[in-house]
Amino acid sequence: MVFENLEPIFGEPKVEWVGHSSCPLRPFLFHVYVPDSFHLVIHVTDFHSDTWGVHLSISMLEDIRDIIGLGGSWSEFADYFIDSLKSENLKLVLEANSNSDGVSNAKLIAQKSKGMPVITIPLIKLLDSTANEAMSNLSLRLFKEYQSIKCSLVEEQEQSIRLTNLRAAEKYTWIFFCRYHCQLIDGYPICQERNEIMQKQLEQRQKFQKISDSEKAGVSTNGQQNSPDKQAARDTKVKNRVVPTHRR
Amino acid sequence: MVFENLEPIFGEPKVEWVGHSSCPLRPFLFHVYVPDSFHLVIHVTDFHSDTWGVHLSISMLEDIRDIIGLGGSWSEFADYFIDSLKSENLKLVLEANSNSDGVSNAKLIAQKSKGMPVITIPLIKLLDSTANEAMSNLSLRLFKEYQSIKCSLVEEQEQSIRLTNLRAAEKYTWIFFCRYHCQLIDGYPICQERNEIMQKQLEQRQKFQKISDSEKAGVSTNGQQNSPDKQAARDTKVKNRVVPTHRR
Repeated sequence: MVFENLEPIFGEPKVEWVGHSSCPLRPFLFHVYVPDSFHLVIHVTDFHSDTWGVHLSISMLEDIRDIIGLGGSWSEFADYFIDSLKSENLKLVLEANSNSDGVSNAKLIAQKSKGMPVITIPLIKLLDSTANEAMSNLSLRLFKEYQSIKCSLVEEQEQSIRLTNLRAAEKYTWIFFCRYHCQLIDGYPICQERNEIMQKQLEQRQKFQKISDSEKAGVSTNGQQNSPDKQAARDTKVKNRVVPTHRR
Repeated sequence: MVFENLEPIFGEPKVEWVGHSSCPLRPFLFHVYVPDSFHLVIHVTDFHSDTWGVHLSISMLEDIRDIIGLGGSWSEFADYFIDSLKSENLKLVLEANSNSDGVSNAKLIAQKSKGMPVITIPLIKLLDSTANEAMSNLSLRLFKEYQSIKCSLVEEQEQSIRLTNLRAAEKYTWIFFCRYHCQLIDGYPICQERNEIMQKQLEQRQKFQKISDSEKAGVSTNGQQNSPDKQAARDTKVKNRVVPTHRR
């Protein structure tokens, strides 16, 4: 059966009365679960005098499928059936007993959404220990689901905290990386290491040029290489070399 | 009362029998809530024949405080009391009725942790509609808490997805920022813009040097400036200039 791995479903159906009843209008809870591979069980209870239910066998589900006339595969029908039970529009229709204050009949009316096929599921009244068993089953399973979701919530909250911290740490790492390797001037990063290498190249080239100039001057002008004018001009040239932005 | 804003507490106490009983050992659920400013209500039920409870007034709580002999403020006692009820060690002790299959007495034994004061809360049997009201109350409140936690879980999951996406987007932004402005070579960023400026400075200096060399050579050696050897040497020098890594 395609319902085999179905997680239990809990809900509060909308209660509707057919006929006059002096019964107090109490809220109901419903519970859908799979006890074995051949059945799907639905229980509805107000925890007082009204506990109703049904064990749907595969042939009963096939009858419902034929009645609502839903085409497609068995799996598509199963999905539609479960979606309808999970829908907020799920109604519990109670028929008032004309001879007493009780309920003579109860049925669930499920519809995935307006305009879609309507599923009607007649329910059977559960009495005494069977009714108590249904109530106990519903509440204990609901408690287990509640515990499980509470654990998942704590895990998700921890995950959110981890992600927030990780995000802050990564941002810090990137800023540190850029601050360390680059200097941000006017929004542009200036790479310190690379700048220093290129600055050294410029300086070496200048030194080499100075030596080369001196040698040439020595060869061509003999003794005039250290004339005050030329020396001043060379000094100016050195002073005017570009100083990297981050050193200014 | 300090319990005023207390969220309802749900749990499954450990069941212990005193005396011989032929009663089936069923699981119990308990529910603690504050109906008004002057009471704290505890209900315990197996959803069958045993629903027990107590309405603790402020004076009853003060009696418990005196019995256990816990010092400190009222607020500290209230915290200890609630922590003990929330503890995994909460026990429901059922006393078997020697004349029937039922339970003659029931009490809760709460202790925050081993070695800490033990709180004993005697319970009163609830019957008929009062018992049903307690069961209904427990399950409907549990369902509301379950729904609320489910919503919180969905919100937390969405928050985790948002943070994961934000983290990826931020990482992409930083990588894009570094790729755009810097070139990562051997793990070091090379700033394109700054490199280009410095490269231009190097080239301009070389050009200036070439012109300067030519002029000097022209003055000093007259006609020899274009000798094939010197030209080849200059060409080699130009070819050997540093080409920025990102242009290679």
